[in-house]
Amino acid sequence: MNETNAKKEQLRRRIEKHIEAIGEFTSTPGQGTTRLTYSEQDRQARDYIKATMREYGLDVREDGFGNIFGKLEGTIEGAPSVLIGSHFDSVPNGGSYDGPAGVVAGLEVAKLFRENGLTPKYPLEAVAMIEEEGARFAGGLMGSRAMLGVLGKEEFAALADKDGITTVEAMKSIGLDPTLPGKRDKSEIKAFLELHIEQGPILEEEGIPIGIVEAIVGLAQLQVTVQGSAGHAGTTPMDRRADALVAAAKIVAKLPELAEEQGNGTVITTGRLNVFPNGANVIPDKVVFTVDLRAGREEDVQGAIERTEALIDSVRGGIGATVERQLYIRPKKMSDLVRGLLEEGSRALGAASRPMNSGAGHDAMVFSDFTDVGMLFIPSRAGLSHCPEEWSDGGDIATAVEIFYEAAKKLTEAE
Amino acid sequence: MNETNAKKEQLRRRIEKHIEAIGEFTSTPGQGTTRLTYSEQDRQARDYIKATMREYGLDVREDGFGNIFGKLEGTIEGAPSVLIGSHFDSVPNGGSYDGPAGVVAGLEVAKLFRENGLTPKYPLEAVAMIEEEGARFAGGLMGSRAMLGVLGKEEFAALADKDGITTVEAMKSIGLDPTLPGKRDKSEIKAFLELHIEQGPILEEEGIPIGIVEAIVGLAQLQVTVQGSAGHAGTTPMDRRADALVAAAKIVAKLPELAEEQGNGTVITTGRLNVFPNGANVIPDKVVFTVDLRAGREEDVQGAIERTEALIDSVRGGIGATVERQLYIRPKKMSDLVRGLLEEGSRALGAASRPMNSGAGHDAMVFSDFTDVGMLFIPSRAGLSHCPEEWSDGGDIATAVEIFYEAAKKLTEAE
Repeated sequence: MNETNAKKEQLRRRIEKHIEAIGEFTSTPGQGTTRLTYSEQDRQARDYIKATMREYGLDVREDGFGNIFGKLEGTIEGAPSVLIGSHFDSVPNGGSYDGPAGVVAGLEVAKLFRENGLTPKYPLEAVAMIEEEGARFAGGLMGSRAMLGVLGKEEFAALADKDGITTVEAMKSIGLDPTLPGKRDKSEIKAFLELHIEQGPILEEEGIPIGIVEAIVGLAQLQVTVQGSAGHAGTTPMDRRADALVAAAKIVAKLPELAEEQGNGTVITTGRLNVFPNGANVIPDKVVFTVDLRAGREEDVQGAIERTEALIDSVRGGIGATVERQLYIRPKKMSDLVRGLLEEGSRALGAASRPMNSGAGHDAMVFSDFTDVGMLFIPSRAGLSHCPEEWSDGGDIATAVEIFYEAAKKLTEAE
Repeated sequence: MNETNAKKEQLRRRIEKHIEAIGEFTSTPGQGTTRLTYSEQDRQARDYIKATMREYGLDVREDGFGNIFGKLEGTIEGAPSVLIGSHFDSVPNGGSYDGPAGVVAGLEVAKLFRENGLTPKYPLEAVAMIEEEGARFAGGLMGSRAMLGVLGKEEFAALADKDGITTVEAMKSIGLDPTLPGKRDKSEIKAFLELHIEQGPILEEEGIPIGIVEAIVGLAQLQVTVQGSAGHAGTTPMDRRADALVAAAKIVAKLPELAEEQGNGTVITTGRLNVFPNGANVIPDKVVFTVDLRAGREEDVQGAIERTEALIDSVRGGIGATVERQLYIRPKKMSDLVRGLLEEGSRALGAASRPMNSGAGHDAMVFSDFTDVGMLFIPSRAGLSHCPEEWSDGGDIATAVEIFYEAAKKLTEAE
């Protein structure tokens, strides 16, 4: 083993140790990771992350929302920071990688800066954020939204969990100080880098260790109500029916074709569908279903909506259908500058990579409205996430850390 | 108005008076007819029916199940009876016609025999049966099944309603005697005639007052389970999905075509469909749905099942599908002899009629395994039944009574 390989192997082992350690802070041992924001398990993971930051020679700070920062100062006074990190909360009974893999990447990029004696001109900050999943408080992406002022301090303080415990009460219960400064001005941030597991099957299937995110897809969610007429399953001839379920089924069965017609990676999903009255011998008079449409380019989201609405409008035969738009989020493009650096870094390291879109939302979405953002994906085994079986390779995380390290050297102008 | 018309008008008025009177014996006044078997409303309706039978000069008898018979004796000693009637229970919040229209028809045929001074060789019995709907005790068709020994006396006695009250306890509570004779031998029955509302739209839409039932359709009920793979709605590309709902929708959307290919009035319905996990942003991994198939000829029920199973077998792309047969009832053919008499009667009266199948089950189904059975349908307004809006025309019922009268004269060899 040459020196480069030996260092990479050490990096991989540190990463796996961190992931394993953080994964043990779960309220559901043996049944995956359950680490809700401001819980006892949050406090334990927080202590571990802060201790690691200190061990790596970073200045540790928590903000008024409980986000954690480990800073390596730059030589230019008051210069904006390059942030690298992700979130450290989990869904109930989730996995050990969704969030922590990105937090650990931030820690390890800082460690490489230290190890290699680099002095950045712009500060480097490893960051670990709260409540990305929205499993305790509503909305999700809370750490980044609060930090960037999208979620105001008062709005934040007004949020409560399902038991009525407010954010502020919950913070205090684990010794956090909600009066600390929270919002950061965009002038303080030079760039944000996030590593995340893919949560999909593409990289694993193609045997590629690195996905370079081009855009976080835009998302529209429609709710469709199909109204027909109820009738007795035995006494109503086929040609006199207005069967809401048959009409809904014709729509749902065609959605994959619409997605493929739209192309450019557009995906369309009906995940929820409810039939009324839902009795075996009654022709359904009403069906309500969701349509989730996602694409990397806004024109494809729009195009997919138009195709779906045209399909729904085409229902006939005594059937009425209405469409309600319940959610619309524009696609978020990643920074061309940072994307170029990540591609360069992959090439330099000889790591295979491919451009891809993120189909799920991430903290990087929020940052992309304020600063240059770059995102890397690593393969998810069997495409799984949000379950105990979630797993990614420590070696792939190490590769991503090395790419981020190369990019961060340039962004911080380190020498 | 000539004498024939005047008599028909009197008949129509008597019928409407009876229907209205029986409809008032409901536990949900203003919200349709709710008359559960052996309830206080059963007792009231029972008293009315028995009083009418006596008024019409019939010998009144109740059996050990609470079925009511009003007999006009025949001249041949011990000869089998021609039974005419239906049930007098209702579903909760049902209408005034489903059941009572047929009971009243039996009463009025007997009345016409009396009015016209006919003496039958074979006895004529107006019959009013209990618990056809199965709204209080499980199974339905209870009056006919018990009377014909399909449901044994001990089995009958063991049944209890949702509050744990047994049939026998409930009978006693309204003064009925469960120790009375119950089962009738098939040698005691020469034929059974039943008038029922159509519960479907055909007669009304075609403007035809009389449907002559050829068969009560056979029924198969399948439960289909489609198994795919769950996935994130954003991160799973279209070509890597095994979407259980899309696969199920393709099946459900094609079922009407299969019914039309099979023809002969075959109907296929998916009434119940449940999606798992049923979240807007999760690709469904499982869908469970029912398929209800009905046809007048058993080969069409079988053909429709085969077509449906072949369609289900054709699902591809990582999807598995299993079919469970949950129910199978053979079609019941009505008697050619009685059907011929009913057609003859319609023609003689100048009443338009059409042959049709019954898509719903009736007491006539049970009788058809033991004796010659004939059934007439009259139009249901808007095809509705089992709801307060259920309505049929007293004039149509009067026409059916006249047809039954002509047929009963022949079957009883009345002079």
